[in-house]
Amino acid sequence: MNIVDIINKKRLKEELTKEELEYAINGYIDNSIKDYQMSSLLMAICLNGMSDDEIYYLTDIMLKSGDTVDLSFINKVKVDKHSTGGVGDKTSLILLPLVAACGVVAPKMSGRGLGFTGGTIDKLEAIPGFKSDLSVDEFKREIEEIGVSDISQSENLVPADKKLYSLRDVTGTVESLPLIASSIMSKKLASGADKIVIDLKVGDGALIKNIDDARRLASIMINIGKKYNKEVRCILTDMNQPLGNMIGNSLEVKEAIDVLKGNGPKDITDLVIVLASTMVQMGLNISLEEANKLVLDKLNDGSAFNKFLDLVRYQGGNLEDMVISDKVISVKSNKTGFVSKIKTNELGEVVRKLGGGRYEKEDSIDPSVGIELVVKQGDYVLEDEELLKVYMNEKDVPLSEILDCFIISNESGESNPLIYEIICS
Amino acid sequence: MNIVDIINKKRLKEELTKEELEYAINGYIDNSIKDYQMSSLLMAICLNGMSDDEIYYLTDIMLKSGDTVDLSFINKVKVDKHSTGGVGDKTSLILLPLVAACGVVAPKMSGRGLGFTGGTIDKLEAIPGFKSDLSVDEFKREIEEIGVSDISQSENLVPADKKLYSLRDVTGTVESLPLIASSIMSKKLASGADKIVIDLKVGDGALIKNIDDARRLASIMINIGKKYNKEVRCILTDMNQPLGNMIGNSLEVKEAIDVLKGNGPKDITDLVIVLASTMVQMGLNISLEEANKLVLDKLNDGSAFNKFLDLVRYQGGNLEDMVISDKVISVKSNKTGFVSKIKTNELGEVVRKLGGGRYEKEDSIDPSVGIELVVKQGDYVLEDEELLKVYMNEKDVPLSEILDCFIISNESGESNPLIYEIICS
Repeated sequence: MNIVDIINKKRLKEELTKEELEYAINGYIDNSIKDYQMSSLLMAICLNGMSDDEIYYLTDIMLKSGDTVDLSFINKVKVDKHSTGGVGDKTSLILLPLVAACGVVAPKMSGRGLGFTGGTIDKLEAIPGFKSDLSVDEFKREIEEIGVSDISQSENLVPADKKLYSLRDVTGTVESLPLIASSIMSKKLASGADKIVIDLKVGDGALIKNIDDARRLASIMINIGKKYNKEVRCILTDMNQPLGNMIGNSLEVKEAIDVLKGNGPKDITDLVIVLASTMVQMGLNISLEEANKLVLDKLNDGSAFNKFLDLVRYQGGNLEDMVISDKVISVKSNKTGFVSKIKTNELGEVVRKLGGGRYEKEDSIDPSVGIELVVKQGDYVLEDEELLKVYMNEKDVPLSEILDCFIISNESGESNPLIYEIICS
Repeated sequence: MNIVDIINKKRLKEELTKEELEYAINGYIDNSIKDYQMSSLLMAICLNGMSDDEIYYLTDIMLKSGDTVDLSFINKVKVDKHSTGGVGDKTSLILLPLVAACGVVAPKMSGRGLGFTGGTIDKLEAIPGFKSDLSVDEFKREIEEIGVSDISQSENLVPADKKLYSLRDVTGTVESLPLIASSIMSKKLASGADKIVIDLKVGDGALIKNIDDARRLASIMINIGKKYNKEVRCILTDMNQPLGNMIGNSLEVKEAIDVLKGNGPKDITDLVIVLASTMVQMGLNISLEEANKLVLDKLNDGSAFNKFLDLVRYQGGNLEDMVISDKVISVKSNKTGFVSKIKTNELGEVVRKLGGGRYEKEDSIDPSVGIELVVKQGDYVLEDEELLKVYMNEKDVPLSEILDCFIISNESGESNPLIYEIICS
């Protein structure tokens, strides 16, 4: 077997065998296959796709490239959650304590963000003292004791995905449904949950731009789950504008707390309730109506917030010490009209420039900076009315770049539902 | 501008601008763009193609990546020749002296082979003493003095193609018409001829497997030529079996001499006459009939062979010292029937294993080894009748591997014309 023949086969749109995919992926891990060969194969996969069998083999090879976590010692259904990511997405911070308060075991291994803003781990680490690099044993103990844990993915969990993802990031090979599906599913399968809920973001601020691709991706991931006897549900949600009002690490923790206390923005609160109800339904094997009622109860009676405090305390965090910059600039509209579009990615880029995100893996993040939206899409603003607040620290961003993120016009613009659909099978 | 955006653009099938292609190619030459990024872009080009404009820009950027040869001081039409290559293809060795004997100036820069058997330069260097690494000044002087020269392509001629070709070779990105066309044409344009004849091989022993692709490639190269005001003609010829009877470096020189003396096999002799007539027609601006007559005259009266001797002598070669191994094994058919197929690539691979070709760029070639076909496709053979002679030296090849190159059956198999068509515009 040789890699050039394998690449040529995929270039000619032929199906690769399990052995060929093993040869390619394992060879890439042990460096006998070079970056430039793997990137060529990845581009051929992006353009020629993969069969269901190929996707399953690829996922399985990646899954077996490292350790897996065994949570079977806990005699309850474990439900994990994943989001394909978007600007202002702090749902995990709220969701995990909320479903744990409902009695669902919620173990999660999260990533750091390489991109506009931080990942879940970066957000949690905005809380001074918060320790995310627990060992697998500590992870297990926390789940046993408080029913929830959110730690950074251990180094030896799906190492193949880590190596492939870094390469895809710099070779224009990110946008492939088979590659996205196998990357997500290999990590979720390795972290030991029984059931998985995936918040699949759709829109111009997301990796997946349209509903059809989202449906295809959902179906691929659900099918992979079936091979391992794990129930997967995908919730297709809108990412054509930032989620909630806050973007930036400390600010997003603050907004998560607002939601947990019942004072959060409507969009993120609504989304969290739908995601949580689905997770609770799956975890407790009850109807969606019952699950929904339980979720609302735990949100309203303060037990979700208390569970959040348990989680933060257990992992060493100290909320009182969290810093949000007090250098706040108010940005005002230069004309009157409807906010017909907030450019989501561009606004994320502004937060990255402020120091809230990374350019290179090694960059450190300034948790104190970010943006607070005062208006959302469809709102009517007058000239000189406030659009947003910028929380800045050491780094500055030109005002024009921020204003360019808002299109103010005579039309209110397209309005998308927050939740498009739930795909179960 | 950044390379990931450029790759993504090509992945999404959008047209790249001249500036984007310059950024990519020049960045690759100065190492600011990495192998793994270029291979991803090359695969996207393989699968999504290139517009006429993109192909022209790419060719022009490659052409300008290094030196170009100016032959305008010679006040006659210079005609160059290129072959896309095949097993047993020794036409250049015959063709150049033949057209020079007809009065056409024939400057050629040739490559070494990385693959089954040697390239033209490897074949010439089978002649002891033959010096192929002349300087451009020596090249010019030789053309002026004897009207013909065949040297190895200078290091700084189209360096972009050298770097790209080495990468394509190991990343499954060879088979792309735009990439093949720009690679061939940038080199031909850089070496200074006024008109170019391309022997475009078609068949399972060639890079181009079918006539439709060959026609498309011909049309792309002719169009590139027009941009530089250079007439290009493509002759589509068959490569479904080895050309001539000899494969191996010294053996091919010997067969070239046979053709020049009028004793060569019919297929290669016929092909050389068609190619030479076309070159002479273009070089002397006469009719094809006149050109054909002149070619036959110069072949029959010995002046073509004398010009070959001039060329060899001028470049220091000594034909008497050429070695063909005397360890000759006769391989016989194990059954009776028609030779319905000779597997061309596999037979080339046998010669490489004998030491007649390279696996790595640095490998040295044993010119004394090779194969002499005794039968060709369509011949009827009896059990125990000789199929071929193997000239071996230090390296051995299992007999079964050689026999597997021949399919002997009850049917005579497909018979292809040697020359499919000539494409002029």
